Amino acid sequence: LRNRERLLCAADELIRARGVDVPLEEISRAAGLGIATLYRNFPSRQALVEALLAERLERFATLARDSLTAADARAAFEAFLVEACESQARDRALLDALSAWAEGSAELDRARTRIATLLERLIQRTQREGGLREDFELSDLTMLFWAVRRIAETTSTVAPQAWRRHLALVLDALPASTATALPGAPLTRRQLRTAARAMRGRRS
Amino acid sequence: LRNRERLLCAADELIRARGVDVPLEEISRAAGLGIATLYRNFPSRQALVEALLAERLERFATLARDSLTAADARAAFEAFLVEACESQARDRALLDALSAWAEGSAELDRARTRIATLLERLIQRTQREGGLREDFELSDLTMLFWAVRRIAETTSTVAPQAWRRHLALVLDALPASTATALPGAPLTRRQLRTAARAMRGRRS
Repeated sequence: LRNRERLLCAADELIRARGVDVPLEEISRAAGLGIATLYRNFPSRQALVEALLAERLERFATLARDSLTAADARAAFEAFLVEACESQARDRALLDALSAWAEGSAELDRARTRIATLLERLIQRTQREGGLREDFELSDLTMLFWAVRRIAETTSTVAPQAWRRHLALVLDALPASTATALPGAPLTRRQLRTAARAMRGRRS
Repeated sequence: LRNRERLLCAADELIRARGVDVPLEEISRAAGLGIATLYRNFPSRQALVEALLAERLERFATLARDSLTAADARAAFEAFLVEACESQARDRALLDALSAWAEGSAELDRARTRIATLLERLIQRTQREGGLREDFELSDLTMLFWAVRRIAETTSTVAPQAWRRHLALVLDALPASTATALPGAPLTRRQLRTAARAMRGRRS
């Protein structure tokens, strides 16, 4: 397990710096391990990439779960949004590089479904406690992530933190008190899945 | 001039349907004109693409100019945002296809600068009349457009109007009364220009 962690850390760093095609030998070397150990843990590049993404999704799920049990629902929801957007912005290039490789993994799809359920619970809990407008839905959260990623991508060389201003605008619109009804139906889970898949596909 | 309009209309339609590489002969035929007439009006594909984009920017400038003189500043600003986002969403594919071709045109750059000035005047006028938070800047408007385009792109096959919910959230955050200070400095014009150029480049 220790070796596995070291390999994942080295892979994370090297793929960020050099892209998803970085030789596996270099990853094992950077982890201070032999290539045989790498293959014992990850029989293919595919397996390594999927493990990296699974780890990231797990971290995201933990973040959502922790927010679910925090005392102040509204503050916890806002803090979750900020942290989630930070990781979307920071890991954008890595996620883009990995996602195309790992497309079609049933395990990752299940992890994404679990996260969608957690996010819905988080939204509903915040609404129940009066900390969030009633018409805010999972798809509004997802669209915010897409927006932040695009802004982070576009401003990465000139002002990599600029997305924070856009997020702050959206946060200002979340209290139940200021809400005017959002137009149109929110996307269903199925629509969100299809849209996210299309986006990942376009990047590959 | 009439022929020029017909050629631009035909080009707009065909490039939308088939991409920017559609044969010029087909464009002149769709306009009911000969290829010689096309070349007299547009000596190259480059010239045609630049004319299409210039027309679109001019329409955008007119929209901003009309809003500047409307009686109710706040309502005019909101209506401008909705219309501008509608055209960003609707013409996304066309704009993406054209932008890479027309990169580096000094004339288009000048048109973009004139629009930036108009938008700043529109923002300042709305703020002066109390219809918009004081910390809203040109770069916040630009980031909203980027966000809408990404959402429209991602949802185009499943829910092409979904971006309206994201816009509606942002609209709810615009009144001066609900504003909490936006974090960080807004992007300068120069930064916006660099970022927009990088985005257009990435698409080509």
